[in-house]
Amino acid sequence: MKLASRRKGRDGELVVVSRDLMRAQAVPEIAATMQAALDDWEEVESRLQEVYGRLCAGDGSESFVFDPAALAAPLPRAYQWLDGSAYVNHVELVRKARGAKMPDSFWSDPLMYQGGSDVLLGPRDPLVGASSEWGLDFEAEVVVFLDDVECGSSAEVCAQAIRLVGLVNDVSLRGLIPAELGKGFGFIHGKPPTAFSPVAVTPDELGSSWRDGKLHRPLRVHRNGELFGAPNAGVDMTFDFPTLVAHAAKTRPLCAGTILGSGTVSNRDREAGGCCIAEKRMLETLESGQPETSFLVVSEEVRIEMLDEAGASIFGAIEQTVVQTEN
Amino acid sequence: MKLASRRKGRDGELVVVSRDLMRAQAVPEIAATMQAALDDWEEVESRLQEVYGRLCAGDGSESFVFDPAALAAPLPRAYQWLDGSAYVNHVELVRKARGAKMPDSFWSDPLMYQGGSDVLLGPRDPLVGASSEWGLDFEAEVVVFLDDVECGSSAEVCAQAIRLVGLVNDVSLRGLIPAELGKGFGFIHGKPPTAFSPVAVTPDELGSSWRDGKLHRPLRVHRNGELFGAPNAGVDMTFDFPTLVAHAAKTRPLCAGTILGSGTVSNRDREAGGCCIAEKRMLETLESGQPETSFLVVSEEVRIEMLDEAGASIFGAIEQTVVQTEN
Repeated sequence: MKLASRRKGRDGELVVVSRDLMRAQAVPEIAATMQAALDDWEEVESRLQEVYGRLCAGDGSESFVFDPAALAAPLPRAYQWLDGSAYVNHVELVRKARGAKMPDSFWSDPLMYQGGSDVLLGPRDPLVGASSEWGLDFEAEVVVFLDDVECGSSAEVCAQAIRLVGLVNDVSLRGLIPAELGKGFGFIHGKPPTAFSPVAVTPDELGSSWRDGKLHRPLRVHRNGELFGAPNAGVDMTFDFPTLVAHAAKTRPLCAGTILGSGTVSNRDREAGGCCIAEKRMLETLESGQPETSFLVVSEEVRIEMLDEAGASIFGAIEQTVVQTEN
Repeated sequence: MKLASRRKGRDGELVVVSRDLMRAQAVPEIAATMQAALDDWEEVESRLQEVYGRLCAGDGSESFVFDPAALAAPLPRAYQWLDGSAYVNHVELVRKARGAKMPDSFWSDPLMYQGGSDVLLGPRDPLVGASSEWGLDFEAEVVVFLDDVECGSSAEVCAQAIRLVGLVNDVSLRGLIPAELGKGFGFIHGKPPTAFSPVAVTPDELGSSWRDGKLHRPLRVHRNGELFGAPNAGVDMTFDFPTLVAHAAKTRPLCAGTILGSGTVSNRDREAGGCCIAEKRMLETLESGQPETSFLVVSEEVRIEMLDEAGASIFGAIEQTVVQTEN
């Protein structure tokens, strides 16, 4: 099943979307918003699946043309956005780029930060350019949307709480991050609002690509129409999603609607390319002594997408253009 | 005006509370929840004030006895909880206790972390004891509840977005914090759910105690019935609330319902006592070479309250008892 939120008020309007991303249908009689559906998942799931089944079978009497430009994030504002750093290879490279050594414990103790969740961007929302010294970068990731999780739950239990899967652009301001990390308290300035894929999908929709708590498909990133990277999200993921969820729930419960991210997807195989500019700059520095690839500037375009084995888009594409700051 | 949320479903039921904290009234025809009121503040404020006026004047025909034990947090789950460290004196002492030096920049660049906001505790909810090695501590703070704030807003503009003021116990697990700070990404384990005062009040309710973007009243903390500290929240607050809000909004907008905290209240005048155990332990270490005061254990009680000039409770009291973990 594929779900999305059409722009409407502060929380959007829940819509069920056909597998081919061509048609959509609002379901106010089942759940008005995505959060309402996640709050009451056991009650509403089968009814949403029925609508999805009819929509995919071509019964579109109550449906309309699916338009990604009309979408908000699946949760336009969420109660929680936690982002792990499961591809430890990426963390090591980015730390090197900052001249910082990565502790060995990072291979066994997941790195994770609490992100701002009060304003989340839709798949076509612009990226605000802001000051060029801020170093605007994208980070392509896989995320899961959770049901309630009790404090202290095991990874096995946490695996059962994964309701939906999606993609994000975890926008980063590289120029502001080193100073914030030095303070130790995480990110307030370094991570402006995160952008989401048009739809979020139930794990069953991913078939055998969803196994071992990971999504085994290449995550394709384009910059200005050129392929920037397509590393496989199922490869070199040191911590699987259930492990990340259990880490988050060690000393507190998690509320339904919590969004948890994988961190920037990254493969040791350099031929795959990367999912953020910072990693590429680090590799350039290691090869030639200095970075060559610049951070994003106004009018540049970023596209993030994942295709199934038949070449069809699973989540639809995040397509963002950098615009001038309003200030 | 004083507002609270009675336990009901996931988001509670908004109630208007009389100034003397004796009577309350639900207002479903105005706003069903606190978040709904904050989402539409300009529309609902005067109508809520009318109810408050009638309630304070003794017209309680639709009211009931106000019972703090029946309350959730004002926002039982919020879209954002940001906590500053405005009492830099406290930060310096806690860092000393960890054997870490505080950078001079902390006197001009506010320290702030993004806290978990998906599960917030009511004023009588228990504190979960968990492992004694985790070092359970309280932190008494003042918080503000915000309206929408545009990205890049000045402190002057941010001052106008403060809708409500309240108190919190920013529960901390001292044993888990040093390792997390070393990772640089903020707190995932060190800060379990935060507990809130029974009511949140509009700034006009605070009279001349609310000035210069600070709340100038002693914050009284009792541990097991004995006064632990009563430092004045308006004294030694290096960064006022509007400055903290502007810091938070530097690279992103803030959504209505954002809660922003002052950090643990702390005065240079040691006679005032403190608002957390960690600070007291540091002072003991500086005086006698080792800490004497222990962290919280099962069955201990914490009470956090603020009185007005006439000795009446402004926000009602946070009263929590430590219980055994369920695990």
